[in-house]
Amino acid sequence: MTASTDQKIAAADRTLYTYFRSSAAYRVRIALNLKGLDYRSVPVHLLRDGGEQRRPEYRAINPLGLVPSYQENGHTIRQSLAIIEYLDECYPDPPLLPRTPAARAEVRQSALTIACDIHPINNPRILKFLERELQADEAMRLRWMRHWMQVGLEGLQAMLAGAGTAGRFCHGDQPTMADCCLVPQLFNARRFEVDLTGCPRLQAIDAACQALPAFQRAHPSRQPDAAN
Amino acid sequence: MTASTDQKIAAADRTLYTYFRSSAAYRVRIALNLKGLDYRSVPVHLLRDGGEQRRPEYRAINPLGLVPSYQENGHTIRQSLAIIEYLDECYPDPPLLPRTPAARAEVRQSALTIACDIHPINNPRILKFLERELQADEAMRLRWMRHWMQVGLEGLQAMLAGAGTAGRFCHGDQPTMADCCLVPQLFNARRFEVDLTGCPRLQAIDAACQALPAFQRAHPSRQPDAAN
Repeated sequence: MTASTDQKIAAADRTLYTYFRSSAAYRVRIALNLKGLDYRSVPVHLLRDGGEQRRPEYRAINPLGLVPSYQENGHTIRQSLAIIEYLDECYPDPPLLPRTPAARAEVRQSALTIACDIHPINNPRILKFLERELQADEAMRLRWMRHWMQVGLEGLQAMLAGAGTAGRFCHGDQPTMADCCLVPQLFNARRFEVDLTGCPRLQAIDAACQALPAFQRAHPSRQPDAAN
Repeated sequence: MTASTDQKIAAADRTLYTYFRSSAAYRVRIALNLKGLDYRSVPVHLLRDGGEQRRPEYRAINPLGLVPSYQENGHTIRQSLAIIEYLDECYPDPPLLPRTPAARAEVRQSALTIACDIHPINNPRILKFLERELQADEAMRLRWMRHWMQVGLEGLQAMLAGAGTAGRFCHGDQPTMADCCLVPQLFNARRFEVDLTGCPRLQAIDAACQALPAFQRAHPSRQPDAAN
């Protein structure tokens, strides 16, 4: 069975619970597009009616009430990087991780720097807690977001510069899981006017990614729920 | 070359930059012990002198100034889960991830729930920012930590219960990467007196892990820098 036959067979059975502006969901959309996998998109509006992710129906799918969740062949995967690793193992072509353990570690290091040390700190639930429980006003919340994004992205820029793996993308000349994470995080950073002057390499990688249809089609503005 | 010969050869070349109470470093110590790998331990004191992790010497190793960092054969890996995946790829016996993509996704989902959605929010740098920039007093910082740990751990408990993969550990009867993350997070939760009554399954798994020497030797109290 070829990969493309396999991909066609399973298409109707792939469901992504997504929100157009969620950068974690955006990562998975990019990965699905890079793999050429069709999927059914179920929007979960994070802000409407106190947050659809808090409803019991969605909590039954994702107990933490976070997006994305991904369903395939009857099982559910939460956590964007677990989903992307799963896709890479089931649909290896094109690969989103290189072949050697050391190179794979570099890609994962970049992806995890974003997925652990930048994004969760600026998640809507954190900002809501800051506002409600710590009376942080909008200016303070903006400062919070900009601080953690800038510190994290400048750290990533330094790591990539130090790794010495040149190329159009985070690691070489093919997009990897790291690029799936970088592009949504830079979208977020620009949305909140983070100073990116210290991150020229990241901006160049972002531009290279934006030229690819897989990244373009995953963009928040192109999602069915974007108008809501 | 057998795995054990391989492990002996490289022992002197393995360095872990660690802090006894860092739960991210604790994860990697458990993984190294489970694999039976000797390593050189370099302590980085997160609190002394404003934080040794902020020094230029350490920033050259880890630009974000976070622990752990791991060095082997001349390359450096940051991010605990990238290190554990690397160890699992280089030293496959005993495995820290199961064989099928769906089972691997479940393990990664548990590990990432802790590594993304619980731990980074309670990192010392976050607590320092809350104190200095938002004037959050000690009671509020404790509330913050307890809230995110409890919410996250109860979510993990629900996911494990829903997965229906019974066993002594998070996923079956062998410890995996998920257990490497769970035990340090529960150590942290107990330290800050988080209410764990909603997490009986997690507590039972923790007890099973604590019976194993690999977990015992990784405990913060058994580290060379614990007395500092």
